Amino acid sequence: MSWKFSDRAIALKSSAIREILKLTEQPDMISFAGGLPSPDTFPVTEIKQSLDVIMQGSEAIGALQYGPTEGYAPLRKWIAEHVSKRDNITISPSQVLVVTGSQQALDLIGKALINKGSKVLVETPTYLGGLQSFTQFEPEYISIESDEQGLVPDSLKAEVADEASFLYVIPNFQNPTGRRLPLERRQQLAEKAKQAKMLMVEDDPYGELDYKGHRLASLFSLAPENTVYLGSFSKILAPGFRLGYIIASEVFINKLVQLKQATDLHTPSITQRIAYQIVKDGFLDTHIPKIRQLYKTRCQFMLDALTRYMPAGVNWSKPEGGMFIWVNVPENINATELLTEAIQHKVAFVPGETFFAGGERTNCMRLAFVTVPEEKIERGIKILAELIKKHANDLEESPVMV
Amino acid sequence: MSWKFSDRAIALKSSAIREILKLTEQPDMISFAGGLPSPDTFPVTEIKQSLDVIMQGSEAIGALQYGPTEGYAPLRKWIAEHVSKRDNITISPSQVLVVTGSQQALDLIGKALINKGSKVLVETPTYLGGLQSFTQFEPEYISIESDEQGLVPDSLKAEVADEASFLYVIPNFQNPTGRRLPLERRQQLAEKAKQAKMLMVEDDPYGELDYKGHRLASLFSLAPENTVYLGSFSKILAPGFRLGYIIASEVFINKLVQLKQATDLHTPSITQRIAYQIVKDGFLDTHIPKIRQLYKTRCQFMLDALTRYMPAGVNWSKPEGGMFIWVNVPENINATELLTEAIQHKVAFVPGETFFAGGERTNCMRLAFVTVPEEKIERGIKILAELIKKHANDLEESPVMV
Repeated sequence: MSWKFSDRAIALKSSAIREILKLTEQPDMISFAGGLPSPDTFPVTEIKQSLDVIMQGSEAIGALQYGPTEGYAPLRKWIAEHVSKRDNITISPSQVLVVTGSQQALDLIGKALINKGSKVLVETPTYLGGLQSFTQFEPEYISIESDEQGLVPDSLKAEVADEASFLYVIPNFQNPTGRRLPLERRQQLAEKAKQAKMLMVEDDPYGELDYKGHRLASLFSLAPENTVYLGSFSKILAPGFRLGYIIASEVFINKLVQLKQATDLHTPSITQRIAYQIVKDGFLDTHIPKIRQLYKTRCQFMLDALTRYMPAGVNWSKPEGGMFIWVNVPENINATELLTEAIQHKVAFVPGETFFAGGERTNCMRLAFVTVPEEKIERGIKILAELIKKHANDLEESPVMV
Repeated sequence: MSWKFSDRAIALKSSAIREILKLTEQPDMISFAGGLPSPDTFPVTEIKQSLDVIMQGSEAIGALQYGPTEGYAPLRKWIAEHVSKRDNITISPSQVLVVTGSQQALDLIGKALINKGSKVLVETPTYLGGLQSFTQFEPEYISIESDEQGLVPDSLKAEVADEASFLYVIPNFQNPTGRRLPLERRQQLAEKAKQAKMLMVEDDPYGELDYKGHRLASLFSLAPENTVYLGSFSKILAPGFRLGYIIASEVFINKLVQLKQATDLHTPSITQRIAYQIVKDGFLDTHIPKIRQLYKTRCQFMLDALTRYMPAGVNWSKPEGGMFIWVNVPENINATELLTEAIQHKVAFVPGETFFAGGERTNCMRLAFVTVPEEKIERGIKILAELIKKHANDLEESPVMV
């Protein structure tokens, strides 16, 4: 049988890095490669209690039957109220679409907005899963200049903004860099978007993981007409539920509902009810601070280890939230090649190249710290530092930070 | 904000019928419109028991954490073994992809195989959700001649088969007609597919709902190289889990895995584990016969009511399984118009027009019977019969059955 794959399917390359990373699932590996939340934060007791409620009497039928494409009504209402209160704005439940994880939000947005060759503006670097999702619809990417604080609004030309399908941006503790966009830049971006009638897709899975709890204004709150906001329960409850949401103008939500119906009919009824049962009485108010504390401690431990072991010529981001640290190594080092050697020493990470729409840089890597115990962080960073020292041509040369 | 929707999003029409059917959610409505399984068949007790097992100890972490895109390994293995045994073939777990409901299978297949203008062959009529899903990728549909037994293999020309992306077919108790493709036609189709190197997408959500338990050979079993098989847990466990699977050659599954990763990362971990816990020790061997008995009785009751009340000039399918009866009314009656009037009399159904890729016929309707109590079936069919009598020009003229 010769398969008649579509152009989009043919264009999909099997990822060499993905193949390498399969090797990292061995139990003796120190893996900084995963993007997994710490299972220590999963509220197992509360989930059990919710299930007891949900599976009682007539409620059980709702949890097991087909449901509305838009999502479970009480959950939509809760999301609208929660985000309205948190960000000091007004969102109606009809502006909320529950999705099967934020990744599905990206898929639906790509479907709704991308024609072959449409211009999609992205950060440099940006979230790999966003690129994978949009690429299905064959856009042309335009990488917008970014620095250690994120996107540089001044570098976004009016004519580029004007003809773009949308700008994809992760303002809070970005995957992969951990950086957060400062308030002033958010305001500038919002202003640019309004002027150019540009749409921004604001992906915010890590916004609640703000170590100090100083939330900055969302792009949605600054330019609601120009923004599609994506939220997720993966990092504050459990990723295995595959639960996220989209907030946008009703016009856009209605279009997405039609696409979602064709895509998977609706998000599972049972997971939506579990989440609602858990969050409805304010559980997150006490739960999220615990996650922040855990991640903050673990992050600081890795930052300290980097300071202890890394040679001159290596620098890294200092995240104020989230799950990732970005490390820049001397320019002559290709991090993908380094990974192969690191794996032989039982240490893994994700090479940075894969997060650039145009593969612009190779001397960088993403380190995840939240699932790794401290003694393994210590050992793993030490091994990485040794390998970098071994290969660096010039440890005094400091690469540009992105 | 003026939205820059993609061509595919612009082409999506808001469905007039969908708007009408929203009216049918009133509690006093007799609705034959839903495609919902009967909640009487949901194994609530067994689901509760599985949850107790799943949420114990370390297993709970697996149910809540990210999981592999391919699906939960024990469930993939179970599916491979179950279908191998049932259909007397050999399927390896690596040929199985777990999906977020069969609707997602259609979405992924469309992504993998349809370019704009690709030719997709469909039955006349066919499943509306299939059309909705494929339409996202802008194919050209070619409706293949079908009669009361389903697709007519002789009408499928070699040159049409040859240039098609695939043929989409629901051989068992098709939605919307309830018809089943006879064994001989399956063999002819399989032969044609092999000769023309044509791919068949065999959608089989109702295959287990065979009232007499006489399963006919699947297209996959007759031409495994030429078939992508879609199975579902929606009609044998619970649709709210959104759990289905795809069985195909490994080459194709590997491509779908890449697309699924970009689409929703993976199907929820918890629902996959619930399903596995329930089915692993043979529960379906006793559960499915109960569903069959319930649906058979309800189907026979509706068939008897149709015989009692419908005038000459009306005919209908006599399903041997599944959830739907297809009714042909006199040619001058437009079933979409009839629906508006029927709703005023508190009866609803789905007009047949919507199931034809080219909207070929309007004098037909789909009736679902499994969620409607017998006294309501009796009353609803009587009301429909009266309305048809009122509007029919010529009750002696018998329309062609499809």
